[in-house]
Amino acid sequence: MVLPFDILEYHQRLEDTKKRMADKGIDVLLITDPANMNYISGYDAWSFYVHQMLVIIIDEPQPLWIGRYQDANGARATTWIYEENVIAYPDYYVHSEVFHPMDFIADILIQIGHGKRNIGVEKDHYYFTGMALERLQRGLPNATFHDATLLVNRVRIVKSDQEIEYMKRAAKIADLAMTKGVESIHPGVRECDTAAEIYYHMVKGTPEYGGEYPAIVPLLPTGDRTSIPHLTWTERPFVQGNAVIIELAGCYKRYHVPLARTVSIGDPNEKMKQVAPVVLEGIQEVLDFAKPGVTCGELEEVWRKSIKKHGYEKESRLGYSVGLNYPPDWGEHTASIRNGDSTVLKANMTFHLIPALWFDTDGIEISETFRVTEKGCERFTTYPQELIIRDHMDLSGQIS
Amino acid sequence: MVLPFDILEYHQRLEDTKKRMADKGIDVLLITDPANMNYISGYDAWSFYVHQMLVIIIDEPQPLWIGRYQDANGARATTWIYEENVIAYPDYYVHSEVFHPMDFIADILIQIGHGKRNIGVEKDHYYFTGMALERLQRGLPNATFHDATLLVNRVRIVKSDQEIEYMKRAAKIADLAMTKGVESIHPGVRECDTAAEIYYHMVKGTPEYGGEYPAIVPLLPTGDRTSIPHLTWTERPFVQGNAVIIELAGCYKRYHVPLARTVSIGDPNEKMKQVAPVVLEGIQEVLDFAKPGVTCGELEEVWRKSIKKHGYEKESRLGYSVGLNYPPDWGEHTASIRNGDSTVLKANMTFHLIPALWFDTDGIEISETFRVTEKGCERFTTYPQELIIRDHMDLSGQIS
Repeated sequence: MVLPFDILEYHQRLEDTKKRMADKGIDVLLITDPANMNYISGYDAWSFYVHQMLVIIIDEPQPLWIGRYQDANGARATTWIYEENVIAYPDYYVHSEVFHPMDFIADILIQIGHGKRNIGVEKDHYYFTGMALERLQRGLPNATFHDATLLVNRVRIVKSDQEIEYMKRAAKIADLAMTKGVESIHPGVRECDTAAEIYYHMVKGTPEYGGEYPAIVPLLPTGDRTSIPHLTWTERPFVQGNAVIIELAGCYKRYHVPLARTVSIGDPNEKMKQVAPVVLEGIQEVLDFAKPGVTCGELEEVWRKSIKKHGYEKESRLGYSVGLNYPPDWGEHTASIRNGDSTVLKANMTFHLIPALWFDTDGIEISETFRVTEKGCERFTTYPQELIIRDHMDLSGQIS
Repeated sequence: MVLPFDILEYHQRLEDTKKRMADKGIDVLLITDPANMNYISGYDAWSFYVHQMLVIIIDEPQPLWIGRYQDANGARATTWIYEENVIAYPDYYVHSEVFHPMDFIADILIQIGHGKRNIGVEKDHYYFTGMALERLQRGLPNATFHDATLLVNRVRIVKSDQEIEYMKRAAKIADLAMTKGVESIHPGVRECDTAAEIYYHMVKGTPEYGGEYPAIVPLLPTGDRTSIPHLTWTERPFVQGNAVIIELAGCYKRYHVPLARTVSIGDPNEKMKQVAPVVLEGIQEVLDFAKPGVTCGELEEVWRKSIKKHGYEKESRLGYSVGLNYPPDWGEHTASIRNGDSTVLKANMTFHLIPALWFDTDGIEISETFRVTEKGCERFTTYPQELIIRDHMDLSGQIS
């Protein structure tokens, strides 16, 4: 079995996690976020639609994987966990009204002597439901529960060189998918046709690096819907004069590099012409300012002042830490580039800077994913940073 | 705005939900499952990575949509909910350690006079976290909480004719994606290349019906990994003599028709040759038996007896109710085709019958999605029901 990272890197991640557990007085950490499970163990499967977890015990060298019987082979195939630490629950626990996997897991924890310890749970992660919490609390009445939301995510925030390398590969895929997606946009082509083109290249990747499914599907709000960031594509054809926002990510070994651009089909309207340079200038000022030692909040301030010169304001956050992930989000939920975020930038932190401006009936998104370097920062992708204009007098598929 | 269903159909769904609420003594139902939100209101956006919900109040004619500020336009664009019932929380609630959207929601419920009522929550749905439950309970100390897991899912189990029509369109897309995916398999082609081909057609759909993203990515375990159902594709090339399992779904208006086939690259091995007819015979016996009035448990018994004649046993469930969904699962989590499930089949129930057999180092999956009709059942797809053999002396891309 070839894991995406050296075993020593996994050991380091486990050690860093245990340090944070110790700081919080947690003896046993129950990890249910699939990205955190992958980060520590390598586990990679589309099995997070059933209850499963990785258990880190502060005084044990190996985590336990606990999941569905038919997924145990996946744990054996994709992790560095020894056979005896792979524990499976029978299939009658799946989507049952009688049996709950967390009852099984609570029993296991008692059997192996951890029923009275300080137990950390990822209380606000997607795949840890209210019922999972209640069942564990009921099944482990002598344990003390602690909230460990984002504990592992905070370890993930600074990337290793190998993680950066995977993100660089993801960036090549993002550039390719954006290029092909934009080239496919013509009046009369349906949004789903362009989404298909993007998906094809995102998944195929390059001849060197095969692509993976991104944690968020490509978003391409069009026309009116450019004011609505999270609607997915429709069957509607593109219309001359419309704008289209493409937000996608290249993904390699579950590492994401998101990229957004706004495309005008034919001449952009006056507002677009006005707003695009404001956004581009703001992005440039933020990228020029980003370096180790400054905070995420300070980055937001640079942006806010930059667009304010031109009379604009933006309420929502500008970006967030990004990297390893699974659906439904590629953001890491730790640092946000927004007012008041005190995260101090360090080398090899990685962010998706997406300072979109949305108005009542339209919007513009131009984004960059960047890595903090020793002295500043660098973009991952090379796709031209501009408002893209598709001139349909030229139907050859070239970007005009 | 054109909704996928007539407004009367949404009203009926709401009424059916309220009846079940009344039966359980629930006055206010908080819906966080994106499929259930869509089912009742039409809401369709990739916004379930932040906390959001639909609130059904038993004595109010309209649900409330409560979500992130930047997603409120999506609620306006995709639902039949009046403007005054769309309530947005500010962006500083997103992925914050200080502010939690459920605090905001609890305050709203108190303000509008529902702080002391019987409140139902979908306790075991993916996007309802342990912390969401705790914060709501803390914010609504005078409310009585009830578990409403699967309450709306149970309304969804019998489809309307319009829903069946959407599934028929999804089936055309599934047939197309399977055809193109299988045709792309040759020794030397990478798994990601075939996944890309499948995705392209799944998303593009047919000239009449544009495709959508499925709730589960295409799975294509290959070689050894055919024993491991939920691993996703890799960059590895296909090898002559390998088997490949393709499990995919066509998706239209969020309705899924899943389809799985096993492909042998060149001559199948002896075990495959032995097992394939057993699986095919078992599927046929189950489909022949399925009709209104029989139970899901009885379907499993038919299968179990059918394969037992040939000396086989299968531990996991054979299938499940399927239809409208969002990641991470297209299954509805209500009826399962397994031992002891007492769900009685009714016309227009829809199931994915996937009686896979997995062994230590390989496996076979051949599946059918079917609709229960007035007198029996019918398959949605038309793709040949067989073990598929790709003969690579013929490289023309034809299925041999």
